[in-house]
Amino acid sequence: MVGKQNKIAIVGAGTIGLSFAALHLTKDPACAVTIFDTRPDLGEYVQQNLPGYLTDADHESCMKRLWFASKLGEAVKDAAIVQEQGPEKLDFKTAIWPQIEQYAPEDALLWSSTSGIPASQQSRDMKDRSRLVVVHPYNPPHIMPLLEVVPSPETSQAVVDQTLEYWRTLERTPVVLKKECTGFVANRLAFALFREACSLVAQGVVNVKDLDEIVQSSMGPRWTVAGPFKSYHAGGGEGGLTSFMEKIGGTVQGCWEASDEDVRSGNISVGEQWQAEVCRQTDEAYGVVDTADRDTKTRKVLDAVRGT
Amino acid sequence: MVGKQNKIAIVGAGTIGLSFAALHLTKDPACAVTIFDTRPDLGEYVQQNLPGYLTDADHESCMKRLWFASKLGEAVKDAAIVQEQGPEKLDFKTAIWPQIEQYAPEDALLWSSTSGIPASQQSRDMKDRSRLVVVHPYNPPHIMPLLEVVPSPETSQAVVDQTLEYWRTLERTPVVLKKECTGFVANRLAFALFREACSLVAQGVVNVKDLDEIVQSSMGPRWTVAGPFKSYHAGGGEGGLTSFMEKIGGTVQGCWEASDEDVRSGNISVGEQWQAEVCRQTDEAYGVVDTADRDTKTRKVLDAVRGT
Repeated sequence: MVGKQNKIAIVGAGTIGLSFAALHLTKDPACAVTIFDTRPDLGEYVQQNLPGYLTDADHESCMKRLWFASKLGEAVKDAAIVQEQGPEKLDFKTAIWPQIEQYAPEDALLWSSTSGIPASQQSRDMKDRSRLVVVHPYNPPHIMPLLEVVPSPETSQAVVDQTLEYWRTLERTPVVLKKECTGFVANRLAFALFREACSLVAQGVVNVKDLDEIVQSSMGPRWTVAGPFKSYHAGGGEGGLTSFMEKIGGTVQGCWEASDEDVRSGNISVGEQWQAEVCRQTDEAYGVVDTADRDTKTRKVLDAVRGT
Repeated sequence: MVGKQNKIAIVGAGTIGLSFAALHLTKDPACAVTIFDTRPDLGEYVQQNLPGYLTDADHESCMKRLWFASKLGEAVKDAAIVQEQGPEKLDFKTAIWPQIEQYAPEDALLWSSTSGIPASQQSRDMKDRSRLVVVHPYNPPHIMPLLEVVPSPETSQAVVDQTLEYWRTLERTPVVLKKECTGFVANRLAFALFREACSLVAQGVVNVKDLDEIVQSSMGPRWTVAGPFKSYHAGGGEGGLTSFMEKIGGTVQGCWEASDEDVRSGNISVGEQWQAEVCRQTDEAYGVVDTADRDTKTRKVLDAVRGT
């Protein structure tokens, strides 16, 4: 599909929309991208902000393959891919897909970047519910390789296959979930660790900055190279994960029980008392984060692990 | 302290002991390391296995600064640092420290590599309980920068300060915990994510290999560059973590509640029914892990993020 002068329609010009536009334009040198949004200053806004997602080397080639549309029908009419990142509201999603279905070519891939509204709900009013699939990025998508591909029970295998093929050609890492679930997988995992982090800071075991330092100098690099199962499998030696659980299982269970107890006693739910202190420490530690520096370092880390 | 021809006594010649021996010998070119263990083939065993922890370039210089002792008193008598990684049994720990105290110089630093037995328990029978501090590595310590420094309420500030100074000079990342807690911080965090990973695999949302792929292409590289607090603080834009929690808090809470429900309904405790299938999938996915390849890639990732 790459190399066929794909037309890609980006619905919604927020930060995810611009980041995806940059990703397509940079990685698929034959594509043309049309951005649709109802904001009146759309062209000016994108011209001003998109360059922040592009390297200097890519700038000229990308900006001349970029188009704008203030009408949805116009944006999607020749599209091979329609990628939606509008408001995270079910009403918005269920209303827009039948419109897109009406104007887009019959074989266009239809992707939602939603972080939480499953395709089975979004597609409710579509004529052909088999066409829609969630493609959930890890922010920002022009840097981070992961794309969670989450079909609904109605999504066709052909749509999933073409979606995977496109992203693999762009050297990204699409991963298919076998069923829809609350929050999908990446956020579920990250938020589980984040809750434990909040709990340990709330208890005064460690401060925010030291906790980040711990993660950056241990799990971060380890899990860049080998995910948790592979890591603990290696930790078990020749007996693998089974052996790891036999040897270390008591410690693991002890930690899980301590976590549950601390989350309960510290009332670690969103909006409760612990949150103000955690936010205060984070503000004090970091002020405003320089995401350009973060993204440059992240690219280097990704190049290092890929051996490029 | 580095450069003063430190003598370092390593108590216990298991994998952690050898990895720490390699770390000291490589990073502190003036030090001499004595390894104590009761195994009868100690010298032969170490000569055979230590090279696996050393690069070819370091091999000659390191091996000639290495000594063995079959008696504890002999190993620790001139030591500036005594680093213990014996069996993870309270009886062993409480018995060995008074012996070490008897033979080691009065100003020697006393470190335990335990992953779970706090210094306040280990030091029970010592004359001077202020001398002992836990220095818990993230395996393997000759690769991973993190050292969790966990003082007991009795540990002196001077011991903590000298411990930090030593590790910083060796360009490692020591982090002090403000109080003892079950499992210390790194394992608590990692096991929290691991439980969620087990739960999602047990439910059939994703398989073991795809879950690892998700982590390796998202949280891994992100948290190598910026820990969870810094990441979500950046995610909140100018309003930081406070703003992130206002915007995304509902999603976070939804994920936490779904996790609790799934852990309960899936009975995700160590040794329960889910475990066999998770171990089976992990075996099938990875066989025996090539840790040499993992360690080479990890060094590259660490170099990339440090800009060296």
